[in-house]
Amino acid sequence: MAKKSVREALRLDEVDLSTLDPAGRPVGPKNKKEAAEDLAATGTELDDLQEALYAENSRAVLLVLQGMDTSGKGGVVRHVVGLVNPQGVRIASFKKPTPAERRQHFLWRIKKVLPEKGRIGAFDRSHYEDVLVPKVERLVNAAELRKRYKEINAFEQELADAGTTVIKCFLHISPEVQKERLLARLDDPRKNWKYNPADIDVRSKWSRYQAAYTQALQNCSDTPWYAIPSDRKWYRNWAVSRLLLETLRELDPKFPPPAYDLEAEKARLISHDPLR
Amino acid sequence: MAKKSVREALRLDEVDLSTLDPAGRPVGPKNKKEAAEDLAATGTELDDLQEALYAENSRAVLLVLQGMDTSGKGGVVRHVVGLVNPQGVRIASFKKPTPAERRQHFLWRIKKVLPEKGRIGAFDRSHYEDVLVPKVERLVNAAELRKRYKEINAFEQELADAGTTVIKCFLHISPEVQKERLLARLDDPRKNWKYNPADIDVRSKWSRYQAAYTQALQNCSDTPWYAIPSDRKWYRNWAVSRLLLETLRELDPKFPPPAYDLEAEKARLISHDPLR
Repeated sequence: MAKKSVREALRLDEVDLSTLDPAGRPVGPKNKKEAAEDLAATGTELDDLQEALYAENSRAVLLVLQGMDTSGKGGVVRHVVGLVNPQGVRIASFKKPTPAERRQHFLWRIKKVLPEKGRIGAFDRSHYEDVLVPKVERLVNAAELRKRYKEINAFEQELADAGTTVIKCFLHISPEVQKERLLARLDDPRKNWKYNPADIDVRSKWSRYQAAYTQALQNCSDTPWYAIPSDRKWYRNWAVSRLLLETLRELDPKFPPPAYDLEAEKARLISHDPLR
Repeated sequence: MAKKSVREALRLDEVDLSTLDPAGRPVGPKNKKEAAEDLAATGTELDDLQEALYAENSRAVLLVLQGMDTSGKGGVVRHVVGLVNPQGVRIASFKKPTPAERRQHFLWRIKKVLPEKGRIGAFDRSHYEDVLVPKVERLVNAAELRKRYKEINAFEQELADAGTTVIKCFLHISPEVQKERLLARLDDPRKNWKYNPADIDVRSKWSRYQAAYTQALQNCSDTPWYAIPSDRKWYRNWAVSRLLLETLRELDPKFPPPAYDLEAEKARLISHDPLR
């Protein structure tokens, strides 16, 4: 029997966040040690594939990371994206839009920082913020939301057409684990800066955010979403690293053949002494 | 006796590239194994310091990497900058200016990609290209070159005033080692893409480039240059990692104290159940 890919196992086809287990391990390693070994091996292979992607210079990958506060978007950037050469990586994080950004179409700031060809991009939050916060805060009406879902689907199709494979990850955590992680930020002076009192305001709207996510994920599923159980950090990192690995293996980037005469260049190099 | 810092040992005060040994090890480990152990320890400390720099969000560091082809600018980005969280890093590489870039002041494209506060920037080539190539290729006259040196000094002073510490590294290799590395690019199909026949044209002007470097380094030394012996990759990576480490230690970034009432926030978090 063929082993199920991580993409198959985590692909979110019919979204019901209420039944998704954020502490689940639907595929892959059952403990931290196994996951760490697997992550190291994945890192080596990812690094090679990324170098070939960079050398090929014709396609790109974009990892979109969404999830509630403390779900580990930054942790994935550090531990998964950090596995490859930083020169080939393009990271962007999206905070609350600035006044200048609000005067533009919501995709404007996103399109400015897309990964160039040959790069792996990572978005810590993304264009999905613009269909989550506005819904929860009732900043836009249902018609505007539907318009945005359509625009997002069209935008992601454009990316695919231009050779960028988008991997959308919903980092799913439980409110209990969020509480633990927020407390840890309050307890550790090295983490105090990561905490913002507004985090609790957002937390207090947990159910409304889950509903906004469900609706956004359902309406913007032309490019598939993956649900990453994220109560365990080691499982979350493992899962995203494997999604990235499976995607790159499928892209199968190739080092380009030389666009020059190898033997002639060797001869030039050997015969030539620049200091003579 | 106080141990000499790597910055003191490698600081280039009076530039005479002809007497600088690219295979030298004026300070630090004597072999690859020691250097690797040291680099790993440096990585751990750098990672901590970088997180504090990011949290503090008021100052930045910029690593400027210059050197002949194959001197290892990309290798330093990979092995040294790759030691820290990619989220806190801003990498830029500068190729031959595009027509659009050539229509602007030479510092225009540089200023666009400076590291934001809290970040470690790395430049793979830099504004120095604009006082090297034009001199070697005689694209500008001596008066224009002097003007550019002055502008560079003023620009680097502006960076310092704005809280960005610039670490300028000249990766010094011998023409013999360059030949070996170019041959390796021709011999390995995974490296063919890194080779460009124009590399030999540049190589053929070795002495003129050394003279252009000498003049640029001498005239733009308000912010010090460090000469990194780069014939040995392990020594090069070790040395740059230590320059970065000493700089960050001196900056001594601090995690900011909370701008909120810690106990009140703990109480809010504990008393509050978002799903109730």
